Amino acid sequence: MSKAPHLTFDLDMPGVSRGHLVVPGGSDRGELLLPVFSLNKGEGPRLLVTGGNHGDELEGPLVARRLIEWLQKEQICGRVIVLPVLNPLAVEAWSRNTPLDGLNLNRIFPGRADGSVTQRIADAVSRVLLPMADTVFDLHSFGPRWDFPPAATTHPIADPDLMARTVRMAEAFKLPLTLVWQHNDTVGMFDIVAQNRGKVFVCAEFGGGTVGANNLAIYEAGVRNAIIALGLVEGEAESLTFREQKSCQTLETHPSDELKSPATGIFEPRRSVFDEVKQGDVIGILHLMDSPAAESIDICAPGPSIVLGIASGAHVDANKLVAIVARPLKL
Amino acid sequence: MSKAPHLTFDLDMPGVSRGHLVVPGGSDRGELLLPVFSLNKGEGPRLLVTGGNHGDELEGPLVARRLIEWLQKEQICGRVIVLPVLNPLAVEAWSRNTPLDGLNLNRIFPGRADGSVTQRIADAVSRVLLPMADTVFDLHSFGPRWDFPPAATTHPIADPDLMARTVRMAEAFKLPLTLVWQHNDTVGMFDIVAQNRGKVFVCAEFGGGTVGANNLAIYEAGVRNAIIALGLVEGEAESLTFREQKSCQTLETHPSDELKSPATGIFEPRRSVFDEVKQGDVIGILHLMDSPAAESIDICAPGPSIVLGIASGAHVDANKLVAIVARPLKL
Repeated sequence: MSKAPHLTFDLDMPGVSRGHLVVPGGSDRGELLLPVFSLNKGEGPRLLVTGGNHGDELEGPLVARRLIEWLQKEQICGRVIVLPVLNPLAVEAWSRNTPLDGLNLNRIFPGRADGSVTQRIADAVSRVLLPMADTVFDLHSFGPRWDFPPAATTHPIADPDLMARTVRMAEAFKLPLTLVWQHNDTVGMFDIVAQNRGKVFVCAEFGGGTVGANNLAIYEAGVRNAIIALGLVEGEAESLTFREQKSCQTLETHPSDELKSPATGIFEPRRSVFDEVKQGDVIGILHLMDSPAAESIDICAPGPSIVLGIASGAHVDANKLVAIVARPLKL
Repeated sequence: MSKAPHLTFDLDMPGVSRGHLVVPGGSDRGELLLPVFSLNKGEGPRLLVTGGNHGDELEGPLVARRLIEWLQKEQICGRVIVLPVLNPLAVEAWSRNTPLDGLNLNRIFPGRADGSVTQRIADAVSRVLLPMADTVFDLHSFGPRWDFPPAATTHPIADPDLMARTVRMAEAFKLPLTLVWQHNDTVGMFDIVAQNRGKVFVCAEFGGGTVGANNLAIYEAGVRNAIIALGLVEGEAESLTFREQKSCQTLETHPSDELKSPATGIFEPRRSVFDEVKQGDVIGILHLMDSPAAESIDICAPGPSIVLGIASGAHVDANKLVAIVARPLKL
């Protein structure tokens, strides 16, 4: 065992601090230095902003970098810690998981000090940074294979007070979508560990597809809105137009809202994000591409709903997620 | 050596035919069956439409499939052969090149009968299908890592008559962009082999990023417009709106219009497709992500130009292509 994870600087120093979160080395590789920015303006909310949890979701690291410039000009109180890239090994490989150990960082929190490199990153964040914050924004996106609206999301939380505060925080992003997402694969998520410690945790799911200038501007505005709502910065919330739409809606989705591919083939999306659909409406088509008869299978809406996310046209295996629908939230 | 490549049906039969292009087996794998559709309505233009040349460009296979349905209702003369997936091995892997031999199908034409599987696909297409067509539309896209407008493209062609006919054919797609693309990596392209045989060859570069319903509709309209211009179908050309823009423009781009990353880091796009830029305007930013000082390098326009394509925000190595600019075509 090497030494414990630590910061190379003192978070309690007033003003701007820059340094590294040191993730100790192990048998698989040496120590990892994750750049960290901190701005301490005394009393007030304590916020942690993280990006690059998954390596093919680059909106987070880029928006985090832009926030650092903005906070230095605008922050009036409290403390913000920004860690733009949680998992540099995955970011360098443009892959969801860490190539070295194959692990998904967002399924192994709180991590292990004596584990492989991904587990050691989770351990360092859980032990060194998480205790220093009351609120966490983890900046994800849907990656290159999906179309998904800019969204602030949470999973259902057992504690009704924390749930209400979390939904209010998510709505303060004023993004096109606030989403309560119930799914079955939440063990080891950063969210769960933070919520179990009583923290307000919002997972921003910032679109998907190409990471472009227009989308980055929408994403950044959302995080700024939430930081203004926390009182760390004075200003007015600003909602940017997303595909000719400026309204915000709060939806919920459940495991039964997930549509899977009925066979191996090429998925063709037939609907777009935020389309309203009736039961039986065709959302996508699965083409059996090895057949000269050009056979295909329709993938239909299970009931009246709103298209929340839709996979990019691509070759898919059978039983693979290709679309997610949702309905207005009933709390 | 196994038997020669062949079709499982007779292209000269009138009406609809379906079957396979048989790519013989070799030492690396057994024979490959590529589904082929043909519609023979007698005298008239002879068109070959191909998709799935690169396995991470799914617009082509999907638009090709949609064309098959449309042609059966609308085609009035001539012959159209549709091969939706040239390289199923790459499509299944969602990869540009064939995983089995690592080859880029679009750099090894006319292929080799005694080569590896990718070379054998090129050989089968060059020997069996290419002689049956006077015009070829090869349906590409820019893949998941780029933003690029729907475009009909050609490389410069030495024969001025074939060049003029090719540009006219590309403009008949009435897509937002017609592009004459001069670059240095053209050896072994399908285009070159077809043009050397005197054929009109248009490479459709259908956008990039997520393959979604709206983009597919634009792409399909472009190919339909070109088929109508050829006289295979009667009808009016239809131009769909691309990001609030309905106009078409013809541009040219050269190797000096390619902007590369100045270092290893995360590329942030700051401009969008079709933005007009002046010399020195910031098109993107390269962030040195291992630095806690948040250092970055601006990537600027080399002269007055139009942003043609821009890479998605992603980790990039030094000297990697991140943006392409262009100027109005001077023939």
